[in-house]
Amino acid sequence: MIRPGEPFPEADTRFELYVSYGETDAMGVVYYGNYAHWFERSRGQYLRERGLSYAEVERRGVMLPVREMAVRYISPARYDEHIVVRAGISQWGRASVTFAYQVYGPPEHSRLVCLGTTQHACVDANGKPVAVPGWLKEICLK
Amino acid sequence: MIRPGEPFPEADTRFELYVSYGETDAMGVVYYGNYAHWFERSRGQYLRERGLSYAEVERRGVMLPVREMAVRYISPARYDEHIVVRAGISQWGRASVTFAYQVYGPPEHSRLVCLGTTQHACVDANGKPVAVPGWLKEICLK
Amino acid sequence: MIRPGEPFPEADTRFELYVSYGETDAMGVVYYGNYAHWFERSRGQYLRERGLSYAEVERRGVMLPVREMAVRYISPARYDEHIVVRAGISQWGRASVTFAYQVYGPPEHSRLVCLGTTQHACVDANGKPVAVPGWLKEICLK
Amino acid sequence: MIRPGEPFPEADTRFELYVSYGETDAMGVVYYGNYAHWFERSRGQYLRERGLSYAEVERRGVMLPVREMAVRYISPARYDEHIVVRAGISQWGRASVTFAYQVYGPPEHSRLVCLGTTQHACVDANGKPVAVPGWLKEICLK
Repeated sequence: MIRPGEPFPEADTRFELYVSYGETDAMGVVYYGNYAHWFERSRGQYLRERGLSYAEVERRGVMLPVREMAVRYISPARYDEHIVVRAGISQWGRASVTFAYQVYGPPEHSRLVCLGTTQHACVDANGKPVAVPGWLKEICLK
Repeated sequence: MIRPGEPFPEADTRFELYVSYGETDAMGVVYYGNYAHWFERSRGQYLRERGLSYAEVERRGVMLPVREMAVRYISPARYDEHIVVRAGISQWGRASVTFAYQVYGPPEHSRLVCLGTTQHACVDANGKPVAVPGWLKEICLK
Repeated sequence: MIRPGEPFPEADTRFELYVSYGETDAMGVVYYGNYAHWFERSRGQYLRERGLSYAEVERRGVMLPVREMAVRYISPARYDEHIVVRAGISQWGRASVTFAYQVYGPPEHSRLVCLGTTQHACVDANGKPVAVPGWLKEICLK
Repeated sequence: MIRPGEPFPEADTRFELYVSYGETDAMGVVYYGNYAHWFERSRGQYLRERGLSYAEVERRGVMLPVREMAVRYISPARYDEHIVVRAGISQWGRASVTFAYQVYGPPEHSRLVCLGTTQHACVDANGKPVAVPGWLKEICLK
């Protein structure tokens, strides 16, 4: 986890959303399982901003299934709050890549909602581990 | 929609579940979009009880994508309530099939939660409409 | 349902999104139950664009639970497609309001993905039906 | 994480389910965010089997929001597979409790699908940390 104040990867993205009703639960807050969806949406935007969709990554024969996820819930997010999910690649393995996330809510994205990481294996169409391709690394480090 | 008191297809299934936290929303009740999942689970059980999984239906080259859904919400379901979803096939078209659903909650499955229908096209692997195969009809009418 | 070519409420919104992986299913397309979430997000944006959040509507003592939903699925949406959900109020009852939806996908929002409607009861904090408040109607017709 | 072969809490539960279409994604496997729902369902069953619903825990003034989650994905689960989620309490803090999970799939619950843990804060209705009540510990250790 990258805590606020610690250095976050420079090549990052900021995915914004408003909390929907369908994302909340009977406690009145965002259900703990839904942050995985936000993480994924921010990863998708991260690639899209670099001119590459994850669909295109797959067409090139590379898949990045999640191997590990960790989430630390700090402060609950509520219906209609304006949220920003900051995402960036915090670590490159030979055949893996790790994303770090920081989720902020109001007032004005100053309140830390949660922290997370997802580690992705880099595999081919048959699920066999392969080295992270150079073109992927190049694109992501832009 | 088949209302309580009206005749329900004799070949039916009763899918039971406890409402989870993740299915509720900030109003304290099951989110209106989640009933589609319950409908699908009951359809899956309907086939499974007849010795056929939907995965097997697909392997035989037939897909049943949803073409229309209608839901009438009567009384909200809440966390941890014991629910039963009654499902059966209410209509056979030449290249379609319609499921009807009745969802009941406590006390003892006597309270009507919602009613629904889903109409499914019968298509081949390329998405082209095909007549409902005889074997599918036979199995379902058991 | 309001079909393309038929008049759509002039006071409308256009909610845009990219299809996420978590919204797709094993058929490779958006799961039929997820459109309810998009409908809700577009309703939320509809109110927000008029200076009112649904949270604020609730604080004023009015709730708009969904009483009926209908969806017609036309053409599947796929991962990473850029989608627009058009939403507007198609009917005002004494104690109810009906939203209509049209969902479009690529190329350039020209392909119709699905049509839908949701009818909402207008109730107070105790769930008792109340007439649609004048201020709500005024705001929405802007 | 408690790996297979390592001692698992003796007071455990085994929550069974069939993978639904709505839980899969375009890769043809269960979406990585959906395991949080299974974890929660198994926790719910864990309490229910001990004569206590989580709803009842809340009525007694105690809430157990998730503070941390960790998941390790081993082998993907697919549509219609028969799954068992084993859950038990692996650690008691003064004002927290940790659940461990092992998810198994076919053939016959022998294939490890994923491992997980969730750490829960013990708080009162105002969200203030409180010591785990004796009655909760007693019930859970049955």
